[in-house]
Amino acid sequence: MHSRTGSRPASPAEATLNEIGTTRLEAFSDGVFAIAATLLVLEIGVHPANGHQLGHELTRIWPSYLAYVTSFITIGIIWINHHHNMRAIERPDRTFMFINLLLLLDVAFIPFPTRLVAEYLRHSGEGPAVIAYAATLLVMAVLYTIWWRYARAGRRLIAPTVSESELRAIDRGFAPGLPLYLLVFVLAFFSPLAAVILTLALAAFYLPSATLFAER
Amino acid sequence: MHSRTGSRPASPAEATLNEIGTTRLEAFSDGVFAIAATLLVLEIGVHPANGHQLGHELTRIWPSYLAYVTSFITIGIIWINHHHNMRAIERPDRTFMFINLLLLLDVAFIPFPTRLVAEYLRHSGEGPAVIAYAATLLVMAVLYTIWWRYARAGRRLIAPTVSESELRAIDRGFAPGLPLYLLVFVLAFFSPLAAVILTLALAAFYLPSATLFAER
Amino acid sequence: MHSRTGSRPASPAEATLNEIGTTRLEAFSDGVFAIAATLLVLEIGVHPANGHQLGHELTRIWPSYLAYVTSFITIGIIWINHHHNMRAIERPDRTFMFINLLLLLDVAFIPFPTRLVAEYLRHSGEGPAVIAYAATLLVMAVLYTIWWRYARAGRRLIAPTVSESELRAIDRGFAPGLPLYLLVFVLAFFSPLAAVILTLALAAFYLPSATLFAER
Amino acid sequence: MHSRTGSRPASPAEATLNEIGTTRLEAFSDGVFAIAATLLVLEIGVHPANGHQLGHELTRIWPSYLAYVTSFITIGIIWINHHHNMRAIERPDRTFMFINLLLLLDVAFIPFPTRLVAEYLRHSGEGPAVIAYAATLLVMAVLYTIWWRYARAGRRLIAPTVSESELRAIDRGFAPGLPLYLLVFVLAFFSPLAAVILTLALAAFYLPSATLFAER
Repeated sequence: MHSRTGSRPASPAEATLNEIGTTRLEAFSDGVFAIAATLLVLEIGVHPANGHQLGHELTRIWPSYLAYVTSFITIGIIWINHHHNMRAIERPDRTFMFINLLLLLDVAFIPFPTRLVAEYLRHSGEGPAVIAYAATLLVMAVLYTIWWRYARAGRRLIAPTVSESELRAIDRGFAPGLPLYLLVFVLAFFSPLAAVILTLALAAFYLPSATLFAER
Repeated sequence: MHSRTGSRPASPAEATLNEIGTTRLEAFSDGVFAIAATLLVLEIGVHPANGHQLGHELTRIWPSYLAYVTSFITIGIIWINHHHNMRAIERPDRTFMFINLLLLLDVAFIPFPTRLVAEYLRHSGEGPAVIAYAATLLVMAVLYTIWWRYARAGRRLIAPTVSESELRAIDRGFAPGLPLYLLVFVLAFFSPLAAVILTLALAAFYLPSATLFAER
Repeated sequence: MHSRTGSRPASPAEATLNEIGTTRLEAFSDGVFAIAATLLVLEIGVHPANGHQLGHELTRIWPSYLAYVTSFITIGIIWINHHHNMRAIERPDRTFMFINLLLLLDVAFIPFPTRLVAEYLRHSGEGPAVIAYAATLLVMAVLYTIWWRYARAGRRLIAPTVSESELRAIDRGFAPGLPLYLLVFVLAFFSPLAAVILTLALAAFYLPSATLFAER
Repeated sequence: MHSRTGSRPASPAEATLNEIGTTRLEAFSDGVFAIAATLLVLEIGVHPANGHQLGHELTRIWPSYLAYVTSFITIGIIWINHHHNMRAIERPDRTFMFINLLLLLDVAFIPFPTRLVAEYLRHSGEGPAVIAYAATLLVMAVLYTIWWRYARAGRRLIAPTVSESELRAIDRGFAPGLPLYLLVFVLAFFSPLAAVILTLALAAFYLPSATLFAER
């Protein structure tokens, strides 16, 4: 990965061509985040029902709403975070782009276990459904941590204008993610509903806590 | 939420990192608006029919077209408005981004009740279908009002170049939204079809009226 | 529509706020074009079949491929054109944004009649299916012509740097659209397959011909 | 295609209007890449099953996961590459935009054969399913090669700041694509599973090898 061209461009033109800007990486990432979040609604459905029971049916499918809100806010928070942290990155290299791609692969997968939660929560099968959901989020937390560690190690991809204290603030923001999603995963084996509610709580309370970390 | 770093950056670098620009917030929002609007078409379908009856079937499903046009124009108008009002915002804070996320969550949900309207309007079940639709739009109007009030209170997030008269013009644009969508919601209990048509009329006439407000 | 604020801004700040840039209009339009084109693939499906017949099934559904390619290239060409013509626009007003929204509403609708063509071409029902398809494209051509006429009339929204000869070149590009899509629509009543093939030919040959018009 | 206006603009204004920037071409392309990748998840489904068997069902559908990961990484790699190579392009002409459109048409089609692989791999019908998948990727490799050859021939669309050695580096990156996807296509007739795994390996190992080529 160590590249002479990369570290000391032979000419301004090469520098231009080799510098992989963050702009299109962000555009593609934004696209995947926005599309994954918006596709979630397709997972909500009422079973073809007699119209007379539609009112009842619309309340009966509350797990669909819970799953939708949980996944939408989770994806949105990851997006806000990704957006925030990308500003510390000066220029992604190919390895970073690949890690980012794996992260997006996992984020784009979220609608599938979301549908499982929507369909099986409070019915038989809720165990495997929520375990699959929590596993997807845990993999996301692992990949996102690798994403940051790779960029931050030895300030590999960090812009020179970013101070060490700012990096430590971002570190503090990452610290709780992995253990908390591990907790969700373990909880899924014992109480699927509690695991989903904890996931929602994590997303809903992430913003204020992130502000807290940043202000220290 | 009051942050020393936010109000008086310790260094130019921190200022750069802490300033959450509006660019990617707009990109994500634009994405969700565009995708939600474009996904609406997936909700239109003909029931697997004998080909000989397709012509008849295509006219029979007029509520699908009405629901599609109403939701598409409504999302489009919210988008144009969001776009217009974002230009008064200097820099979003995390609370604002969270409110914006909830607003997008509601907008991205619109395809689901749109499908309900498409399927149940003029059949038994049209009541709950249109109530769910109107409730989604009412929540949207509430969140969007909070969105603006939060940014505007004490000019919290307003760019210094924006004049008070301009803020009042935007206020006038927001004023009719909440009561009108409340009216749609109430109407849904009495005449579902009228509620949908009023929703379409609101969207279709919003632009001229918004221009009216702006010109005063 | 005549607005004092619009035509002569009272202050630089107001000018900034009132000027609705083309950037986000293009972003939203690009989004709808890209999503509508990419959603087309969801309309292709094989009927749940015995695996042994999959090879046969994949050739039997050729109308799906024809419909997909025709709609994708048509949307792509409209997009390239929209992109080209937008560069002559200095700043959109609200009426223009509304016309643009109606144009996008029609473009985003294309996946529905595309699915009808995919399912019914060469079966009973192909008549209504292709008529619906051709009608959608005809409405698109009408709206797109209005879009340009509105912007061009009296150079209402045209950038001062754009010469009259350039405007006439764009006019020549628009000239054949409406009559040709009208021809497709009429043809759909007599030969649905021929109408679809003509639509594909229009899109495939549009680029060279557009270059032709531009070179004169 | 040779255009006087194009090669020697008559005025700065015409130059502005005629110059088709790469920005919106990239935006549309990014959109299609991101949407196609994110739509892949819709192809994964569990057959409506008794909840008690959901855990078993979720492991039984491993070909769906394999197909999802393979297609997502493949589309992502094409995107990173497209992004990388676009930076050598100074300004696309209409022919290039059309070739790009055909490339996107093929990329946007990938979710369909991906679903076939997900459903039929390890069942009867896996042959035609993987052949269709490999054929789609082969067409992609052919179109992408044409895309580059057209831009590169006589430096037709290449920015003057890009050196010949940089062009040769991109050439080396393109060299293995076509023969390798041809190999996948041939392999699909003998061992469908091996063909899918080779496709995944190609995508997963492309980045390091591309770096290798670039460093020489």
